[in-house]
Amino acid sequence: MDVVNLSEKFGLFTDQWSPKIVGELNGQYVKLAKLQGEFVWHSHEAEDELFMVFKGQLTMHFRDKAVQVNPGEFLVVPKGVEHRPVVAGEEVHLLLFEPKDTLHTGEVVHEKTNNDQQWI
Amino acid sequence: MDVVNLSEKFGLFTDQWSPKIVGELNGQYVKLAKLQGEFVWHSHEAEDELFMVFKGQLTMHFRDKAVQVNPGEFLVVPKGVEHRPVVAGEEVHLLLFEPKDTLHTGEVVHEKTNNDQQWI
Repeated sequence: MDVVNLSEKFGLFTDQWSPKIVGELNGQYVKLAKLQGEFVWHSHEAEDELFMVFKGQLTMHFRDKAVQVNPGEFLVVPKGVEHRPVVAGEEVHLLLFEPKDTLHTGEVVHEKTNNDQQWI
Repeated sequence: MDVVNLSEKFGLFTDQWSPKIVGELNGQYVKLAKLQGEFVWHSHEAEDELFMVFKGQLTMHFRDKAVQVNPGEFLVVPKGVEHRPVVAGEEVHLLLFEPKDTLHTGEVVHEKTNNDQQWI
């Protein structure tokens, strides 16, 4: 039951596209990630995924549209929906909320696939 | 798949101790609440509960200690652990993450019990 300070946790890592676990509840993980550039198209068969932005601007591409997620905003991507996170500008600091067994590139295996499940 | 702006959602209600639903994923709700004063001692038999503070200072009392949660911080209260949220100063703006069937006063029925499950 320790309090988690998000700024402090963001200060503990620099690698991008490599979510770190900072909390756990009800079979879900709270993760922090730093993103810049383009990710791979993917979907999660059985898991919805929440993206909450703390810094920078995330563009989430879907097959039929794209939406901007700014600091103080979140987006839920439902299971089965193909998506591709893109960060065109400054590095994005992001909180993720998703089931513990979620693979961050979903059904796709890619050079950015990293399922270390590392706590910080 | 709409983007949710937290400030905008906090602007839509003024009632305290009455969590509003702003998102849903994996059988969990994302809720926003405004708190001031003292809540009731309670626990949740089967649900862990996340408290993330955006404004003000929340003191979470446990039977053996109390912890402060400031803006930019979160705390997970595990299932079965008695807790009592207290806000001594300015109104707290809070994000909750918990299973859909969580009753906010847990096993306790109290004048502050409000399980409307209202979306905003």
